[in-house]
Amino acid sequence: MRGRCDVNVRVHGRSRHHRTVTFSARTNEVVLIEQRKLPHTFELTRTKNFNQTARAITNMTVRGAGAIGATAAYGLAQGARAFTGKTEAAFARHLQRVYETLAAARPTAVDLVNALNQVRAAMAAGKTIAQQQRLALKAAKKFADDNVAHCIAIGKHGAKLIQNGTRVLTHCNAGWLAFVDIGSATAPMYAAQAQGKKFHVYCDETRPRSQGAALTAWELAQQGVSHEVIADNAAGHLMQRGEIDLVITGSDRTLGRTGEVANKIGTYTKAVLAARHNIPFYVAIPLSTLDWELRDGTQIPIEERDEDEVLTAWGTDNRGKFRQVQIANPTSPARNPAFDVTPSELITGIITPKGIFKPRDLWRQRMRLGFV
Amino acid sequence: MRGRCDVNVRVHGRSRHHRTVTFSARTNEVVLIEQRKLPHTFELTRTKNFNQTARAITNMTVRGAGAIGATAAYGLAQGARAFTGKTEAAFARHLQRVYETLAAARPTAVDLVNALNQVRAAMAAGKTIAQQQRLALKAAKKFADDNVAHCIAIGKHGAKLIQNGTRVLTHCNAGWLAFVDIGSATAPMYAAQAQGKKFHVYCDETRPRSQGAALTAWELAQQGVSHEVIADNAAGHLMQRGEIDLVITGSDRTLGRTGEVANKIGTYTKAVLAARHNIPFYVAIPLSTLDWELRDGTQIPIEERDEDEVLTAWGTDNRGKFRQVQIANPTSPARNPAFDVTPSELITGIITPKGIFKPRDLWRQRMRLGFV
Repeated sequence: MRGRCDVNVRVHGRSRHHRTVTFSARTNEVVLIEQRKLPHTFELTRTKNFNQTARAITNMTVRGAGAIGATAAYGLAQGARAFTGKTEAAFARHLQRVYETLAAARPTAVDLVNALNQVRAAMAAGKTIAQQQRLALKAAKKFADDNVAHCIAIGKHGAKLIQNGTRVLTHCNAGWLAFVDIGSATAPMYAAQAQGKKFHVYCDETRPRSQGAALTAWELAQQGVSHEVIADNAAGHLMQRGEIDLVITGSDRTLGRTGEVANKIGTYTKAVLAARHNIPFYVAIPLSTLDWELRDGTQIPIEERDEDEVLTAWGTDNRGKFRQVQIANPTSPARNPAFDVTPSELITGIITPKGIFKPRDLWRQRMRLGFV
Repeated sequence: MRGRCDVNVRVHGRSRHHRTVTFSARTNEVVLIEQRKLPHTFELTRTKNFNQTARAITNMTVRGAGAIGATAAYGLAQGARAFTGKTEAAFARHLQRVYETLAAARPTAVDLVNALNQVRAAMAAGKTIAQQQRLALKAAKKFADDNVAHCIAIGKHGAKLIQNGTRVLTHCNAGWLAFVDIGSATAPMYAAQAQGKKFHVYCDETRPRSQGAALTAWELAQQGVSHEVIADNAAGHLMQRGEIDLVITGSDRTLGRTGEVANKIGTYTKAVLAARHNIPFYVAIPLSTLDWELRDGTQIPIEERDEDEVLTAWGTDNRGKFRQVQIANPTSPARNPAFDVTPSELITGIITPKGIFKPRDLWRQRMRLGFV
């Protein structure tokens, strides 16, 4: 199954398959889909060095837990491969700088650090610098391939939750664009669709960056999945009227010790609403989203982003030109926390590549999940 | 106190006082602040006949419970005064058409129908057509003046809820722009400010029309009230972190029988979050927002507006030009319910011009509230 994917992109009228993140070994470039221009323009962009790669993560050219994990993994390999010095000591210093630059690109999603750690650990087996460089790229590729395999497995387990007629709510974009392929929250949807099930998806717009309206809606439209965009304010009303049966979101960091989930701002709100209406609330994660270290959710660093994201919006005008517009009062400031933390008692289950678990059972199941 | 107001607008560098809705008896025009252009341009617009007035309500040139009530009241007077026929029967038929056109302009806010009914009832005392025309305008003016007086009284009662350091959350715009003056949810804030209290207001952006970011933030900035705009998704996170002490919203229809509140989409969500965090949740209403007829909230008509509001956003580009941009995937549809209903058990109190009441006590207090 590894690497196989049924999710396609229609570019210039032709349906093609794209991974969100790939690597060109020949030019030592990370190749990314420019996500800030979607859904208006489908464009690939290449980062030439690890600094550019870190910047592409920070400025959200690439975003989403798994996608930034894979980008960071390739970025570390890219940085390692660019080293032209001679001594092991200089290589180690260089590598530390690459690692730290990439690790600091965004704070909340743990996939990023987990990916860097996996690549660095794999490099340790190399005896020469050249060997370590080769191992770095191999480990980065493995991280990306594992991410795809995890998403396929999430789809297999999660598809059972979706029946004919199920009305699913999802928040932000935890689709294939947020991973290397397939996606986490969308994996059960794509798998259910492949099984011939007919269902409907409500996409929360997900302000301030509107990833739900721009990216998830685009993905679902490409795949022919029935869906509607709603304002973030509307989900409560639809739940109250009995029009939502199931919520599936992604996660940027899931605490193995407590089952708490950090995810895009607004996820917590949807979980509170779902609990009030007895609507099952699931979170889908590849294994790289698990954090076994932190003791509780208050320790998760919550990124505060630029206030301009809240005060403006962006898209194409009536001539198709991409523009950013000031929607808020120009003399008003904004607060912009980018993530929130959902406590385990609001989460019905965590859909992992190894099956669906109660959030409080993750710690007990850590061997089964492949952690020791 | 009637008509007195401390809320000003800075236009072309000069601080002036404006009512949201006024009437020119000489030209028989309703004069409105063009709210769709705020905060970017402060502009007055005039409707020449009742059809234009109804359209200004529908297309949200004027919006907000009290403001559309006053606009409809003036619109009925405007229609009555434009009648040039002779017979009472023709006048009655004409008036019925004016009434129905205005009543159908928007479905959810009951102020609109209450205002029309007040004007029509007052006209019944007129013996001639000319007398009825005069009484119509007098009643419309009284509706507008009462609205201002109600908002001042709401401020007096509600200011007690705000102390030095209180962090208030508000949703949408229930400010002076949504009424004739002062506002409902903002009245306690403006009154507390006049008492010298220092507090902070979080303005929910309130997608899809962003009235919080555009209008409430503008009002508070004009008045020098400390505030920040937040994405609708962020309130839950701020509550979880203990950064919100009080919620005050407006209402488009408050059921006297049950204490349920219909208000801008997303209000229900904020009430659910506030209840979870034991944060007091208040709703401020003038008396025209009360509906003593409907048996329960499921009977409230919930307006579904054009999907374009969800799929797009609007504001000024970097050259100050007003533009609408497509933010969502262009091939995706949207759902756009404009209001939701908050049950009484989530509401700490209703701030009325006659005092603060438990929502379930409104029916028992209806004499005190001036209804028999």
